[in-house]
Amino acid sequence: MKQYEHGGNIYKYGRKIIDFSSNINPIGMPEDIDKLIVLRCLSRYPDINYTKLKNAIADYIGCKTDNVIVGNGADEIIYLFVRALGIKRPLIPSPSFSEYERAAVLSGGIPVYYKIEEDNRYIIDINKMIRNMKGVDGLMLGNPNNPTGQALLASEIRVLLKIALEMDIPVMIDEAFIEFINDYKMYESIDLINEFPNLFIVRAATKFYGMPGLRLGYGIGYNSIVRKIEMYKEPWTVNAIADIVGREIFNEYEYMGKTRRYVAKEIEYMLAELKKIDYLTVFDTKVNFILIKLKYGNVYDLKDKLLVNGILIRDASNFRFLDKSYFRVAIKRHEDNLKLIKALEEIRWR
Amino acid sequence: MKQYEHGGNIYKYGRKIIDFSSNINPIGMPEDIDKLIVLRCLSRYPDINYTKLKNAIADYIGCKTDNVIVGNGADEIIYLFVRALGIKRPLIPSPSFSEYERAAVLSGGIPVYYKIEEDNRYIIDINKMIRNMKGVDGLMLGNPNNPTGQALLASEIRVLLKIALEMDIPVMIDEAFIEFINDYKMYESIDLINEFPNLFIVRAATKFYGMPGLRLGYGIGYNSIVRKIEMYKEPWTVNAIADIVGREIFNEYEYMGKTRRYVAKEIEYMLAELKKIDYLTVFDTKVNFILIKLKYGNVYDLKDKLLVNGILIRDASNFRFLDKSYFRVAIKRHEDNLKLIKALEEIRWR
Repeated sequence: MKQYEHGGNIYKYGRKIIDFSSNINPIGMPEDIDKLIVLRCLSRYPDINYTKLKNAIADYIGCKTDNVIVGNGADEIIYLFVRALGIKRPLIPSPSFSEYERAAVLSGGIPVYYKIEEDNRYIIDINKMIRNMKGVDGLMLGNPNNPTGQALLASEIRVLLKIALEMDIPVMIDEAFIEFINDYKMYESIDLINEFPNLFIVRAATKFYGMPGLRLGYGIGYNSIVRKIEMYKEPWTVNAIADIVGREIFNEYEYMGKTRRYVAKEIEYMLAELKKIDYLTVFDTKVNFILIKLKYGNVYDLKDKLLVNGILIRDASNFRFLDKSYFRVAIKRHEDNLKLIKALEEIRWR
Repeated sequence: MKQYEHGGNIYKYGRKIIDFSSNINPIGMPEDIDKLIVLRCLSRYPDINYTKLKNAIADYIGCKTDNVIVGNGADEIIYLFVRALGIKRPLIPSPSFSEYERAAVLSGGIPVYYKIEEDNRYIIDINKMIRNMKGVDGLMLGNPNNPTGQALLASEIRVLLKIALEMDIPVMIDEAFIEFINDYKMYESIDLINEFPNLFIVRAATKFYGMPGLRLGYGIGYNSIVRKIEMYKEPWTVNAIADIVGREIFNEYEYMGKTRRYVAKEIEYMLAELKKIDYLTVFDTKVNFILIKLKYGNVYDLKDKLLVNGILIRDASNFRFLDKSYFRVAIKRHEDNLKLIKALEEIRWR
């Protein structure tokens, strides 16, 4: 099996760098997190049922506690979905987050891919995707999708879910990045969980709250699908600190709004500036990262050139259907974004 | 599938209780943990390879870094062992930790049980166990075993491993409690990893360091078995705080010695006092918990009676081969242990 690589692996670079490779919140963690932590919480097992944490999430989402499952990042939830529902032949619109594929393969499955078309600027054509659903036993969809940054509207997802339900196909929608969209309400599938018992939504607290070190994710779905997935969950995978912090962050409405406004403004700026650079093809995005294609040269050279300036980008060549022309950058603080633009502008390829 | 219950679930009891049901370090966490935590670590992904953490464990154990895998508690490591090696028919000497069974069942396996005999005071008869190894594709052994508290010597494990190697059977030895034994060097299998490529040792940092809320465990084995198990690992399951704390705790030699001396002394005291209570059959133990059998009455009533005194014991009726006569108590602080003894003495059954 090939190696699955991720962004955010700053540990192999010995010195201080600006990390454009991992897609976390650019404005940092909510400020009052420090006060929350009572380290003595480490001396007890977390509540194996995580009742208070689930209640906090249910309040935030506007669902019932038994519609919620919590996990060690979105990743645990993704793996559980595949394992608990015995999915062996999922359809994965790609390029997409590599852990969907890895989860399926490690469970002995063989994924099927719907190739999201570059000619369509990586916007998913739901009719084409639906035609690919014949013979599959699951659908794993990033919405917004990583690394393409595009998203389907809830109204489109609804069409998809209806057909999937008729075909008896469970659908996982990974909304790990959805809260970064300014008008995310138009995109999120939360309101559909009671209508579609085949729908399972995955979310991360990690990225939106700028705390990838915490490892907290959750899943939302109809009671029966959540109960089934819960049966496969390993005990205590969310540690005591993630449990306690998680009970509080979903109240941070001001922080949430500020993040979304900042990201929206900065995306607009970044897209405009990046598009001025002649050797780049820049794809539009709905979220806090941008997929970019080199018109010449390759991403390995580009990455090296930028590292000299203390800038780390995400080489996107290992995403399915992409190649050494592609890279992904996250939105960071404005002054860091300026450094990226400047460094890219100054690169001479010949 | 039946519900797997654990000790340490204090969350369903609304008030302050002394928790004898979970087997963690009675002297608490090492004192200088608080100083270690730089919460800003939450704002980065942990090192996906956990190189520094693995180095710290390798130094402590006296092995190489590539003999080490880290996980979200011992539990993640146990599940990975089963999944990565495709074990479908493990032999599980029982009664034992229920997660061995659950890991096998959730992977579609059907465990085989060797019943550890009460008549032999729950000491494993390795010849009988070996006779049960025919037709199995794995062995999952707690050493010391939970809830029985007994342990096999490394010299006995060696005999077992030799036969298992000839039969091509991978052996997981769960040493989650081994560091509580005063002369643990006689029991641990660490020195055997290079001789037996079928050996995989599981350890918890959770219990011995009194930090079950942290969720940190590790596995030790020959390079090839560790590499294979690592291939199945989900990313970042050890969060940033567990990573940072984990890099330091394995240096806490004074704390380790103090813990072992305390536990040894307190076990002796507890066993002597408990054995004076006429309605109890008390089994000897090598570690920080004691299995006890009621001569009359049942553990549900006993648990209720003790809860009135603010004491929580571990109902052991849901362990395989045990019934409503059995319970387990952990060693706690001396003053708490006195309270338990007193409460047990005062119970009138008729």
